Amino acid sequence: MRQHNLSRVLHSLADQGALSRAEVAGRIGLTRAAVSTLVDELLRGGLLSERGPGRSGSVGRPGSQLLLANRGPCGFGAEIGVDHLTVCAMDLRGTVRARLERRLRLEGSDPVPVLAELASLLEALAAEAGALGLWPAGLAVAVPGLVARGTATITRAPNLGWSEVDLAPLLPSGAFPLRVDNEANYGALAELWGDPGADGPGSFVHVSARIGIGAAIVVDGAVLRGAHGFAGELGHVPVRPGGPLCSCGARGCLETYAGEAALLRAAGLDLRGDPGERTGELADRCTAQDPAALRAVRQAGTALGIALSGAVNLLDPQRVVIGGSLARLTPWLLPPVRRELARRTMLTAGGRTTETPVTGSLIGPAGPLLGAARSAVRGALDKPARLLAPPGGGLMA
Amino acid sequence: MRQHNLSRVLHSLADQGALSRAEVAGRIGLTRAAVSTLVDELLRGGLLSERGPGRSGSVGRPGSQLLLANRGPCGFGAEIGVDHLTVCAMDLRGTVRARLERRLRLEGSDPVPVLAELASLLEALAAEAGALGLWPAGLAVAVPGLVARGTATITRAPNLGWSEVDLAPLLPSGAFPLRVDNEANYGALAELWGDPGADGPGSFVHVSARIGIGAAIVVDGAVLRGAHGFAGELGHVPVRPGGPLCSCGARGCLETYAGEAALLRAAGLDLRGDPGERTGELADRCTAQDPAALRAVRQAGTALGIALSGAVNLLDPQRVVIGGSLARLTPWLLPPVRRELARRTMLTAGGRTTETPVTGSLIGPAGPLLGAARSAVRGALDKPARLLAPPGGGLMA
Repeated sequence: MRQHNLSRVLHSLADQGALSRAEVAGRIGLTRAAVSTLVDELLRGGLLSERGPGRSGSVGRPGSQLLLANRGPCGFGAEIGVDHLTVCAMDLRGTVRARLERRLRLEGSDPVPVLAELASLLEALAAEAGALGLWPAGLAVAVPGLVARGTATITRAPNLGWSEVDLAPLLPSGAFPLRVDNEANYGALAELWGDPGADGPGSFVHVSARIGIGAAIVVDGAVLRGAHGFAGELGHVPVRPGGPLCSCGARGCLETYAGEAALLRAAGLDLRGDPGERTGELADRCTAQDPAALRAVRQAGTALGIALSGAVNLLDPQRVVIGGSLARLTPWLLPPVRRELARRTMLTAGGRTTETPVTGSLIGPAGPLLGAARSAVRGALDKPARLLAPPGGGLMA
Repeated sequence: MRQHNLSRVLHSLADQGALSRAEVAGRIGLTRAAVSTLVDELLRGGLLSERGPGRSGSVGRPGSQLLLANRGPCGFGAEIGVDHLTVCAMDLRGTVRARLERRLRLEGSDPVPVLAELASLLEALAAEAGALGLWPAGLAVAVPGLVARGTATITRAPNLGWSEVDLAPLLPSGAFPLRVDNEANYGALAELWGDPGADGPGSFVHVSARIGIGAAIVVDGAVLRGAHGFAGELGHVPVRPGGPLCSCGARGCLETYAGEAALLRAAGLDLRGDPGERTGELADRCTAQDPAALRAVRQAGTALGIALSGAVNLLDPQRVVIGGSLARLTPWLLPPVRRELARRTMLTAGGRTTETPVTGSLIGPAGPLLGAARSAVRGALDKPARLLAPPGGGLMA
């Protein structure tokens, strides 16, 4: 129970930034005296710091503000992309303090050397973090594939050519908890946690496009994972059942209209450049009013709007957010998406017809990495006992 | 806390049927002594009865079995259908003890006299229930339309022609809680609660067809309601975006292929008979190998399979259940549904490709009424204080 209350104090500060003891007490429903005892323990353990209101110097007076520490435990986030490995260290306040990246091509790669590379990148990150007084209390890895629910195993990552890869034995996870999830889910969580002013826990569909198209469905603040962990496969929702052949073997999936390769082909662009990054060129051409580019994006938007109409009819979300590489194309993509949604979904609430709002993500392509790091931080805040007694030894302990 | 523990004793018996005191204690994690005190209070209040194991006659000995009472409080369920009003009284054990129905045509009806008719039917049900020693502790109404989340207001019921109808002032709800929900949601809950041997809380998509096609999405044992309460509109998921015009104004919705009118038209049948019941004739023709009937059902099954492929890709449910009037057509409907799902969804779990199972509902068209009544019973079991001190006065108190 005490551990639980310590965790609630930490989470209230993670959500709000800075609070007085009285404000913490109000938020978590404990007495001021009980909160003071908890706060003292966390201050002694170095998990909190205190900021005076500027009038007097005494620690613990009513007006002083508590903050999470920006030294000590932190969360490590990692992203395995088709063309990059990226890692970052996020302190308890949610600030990214160190970031490292290796550019490389991972299509059809052997997972063992790739994960050895990622492990060495994490060692380098631990060294950088250590120089800042930070040590990793958790690691979360965003991957471009399906992860079996409750495991660290990539069941299938078609764009890497990986299947049934268990990350746990190949990554430095002995000293702290390891989480692995689909990049679309972490991207959606970054969107959720990045909006502290939101009115209650959100319910939204977050579209995450790189090479393929995925989505995460967030219901009342939690990602809907599905029976096997495979929910959110928006890219394979049928748009036109007799349409073009998809890499999955079906016909007319959304990816055959709005996936990166389909978009570039329709715009008359070739497939050079880094996969997942080539829509930048397409956005430039749209800005220059290139007719083929505009037509390609319009057609992709229509297909995306048809697939999202199905999702909105089934899920009735508060909103739809377009993230990943498609977020760059929103000036041209959103009008046809909105037109299809207006035609194909009927939402009558409180006596008036409402439309489900569709917006581009403000977080951009860093979403999955930030969501993973934040997930590691939040997981660490759940277990304050581990943070008050940090493990000795190195990263691979 | 005591109310909460009384409620947990009642729910454990509602879920399991009959249990000894020791079994109840094991299920809810309290001591045998604490459970005995709770059970004594519930026995005194008439909410439980006791059944000896046949060896000795003393009350309260270890081997005796506890059961919920089959007298006293009960749940009232009601269904407003396009061609009927039906009500039933379900005792705490989940047995329907009384049932009344009026056949009438409600397309384009005025809601005020219809709800007056329903109120008089509920008065008659209360009289029948009273003769059995039962009194209503809650009422739940299944309606063929959208209900705004957390209200008793039908936002839109296109097949009745109703919009913005608040049931609360028009039904006898002064003496007990009133719940109103979409018939598809109650049908799904009947499916969920009707399977006590299921392995944990279910996650499934329940298709509910009458005249239109709806669905309920159950995630970890709870109906996913959506931001406004309008989730599950499977009938308006696009199947072929340029397809036939739907009553909703869009083109190619699932209802234009698999709704009752579309099915009968494709089979060359006219639209006589009771709406929502006319698929019986179609099933007879399929049994007789009528080619037009078989072709119509096959085409509907293909369209249903395409729409469900989208739902399965998005939601990754454990299973899909076909209920309502389409359940009668499953011998001919399921093969094309399964073929489309096998083509258009890719689920790889634990190293092997799995298919999401699709089955017909075993509950049949009574699902919404049974789910509503069970919902009223479960709501009553949440508030044992009300059941231990039943209200005096009549139904309209």
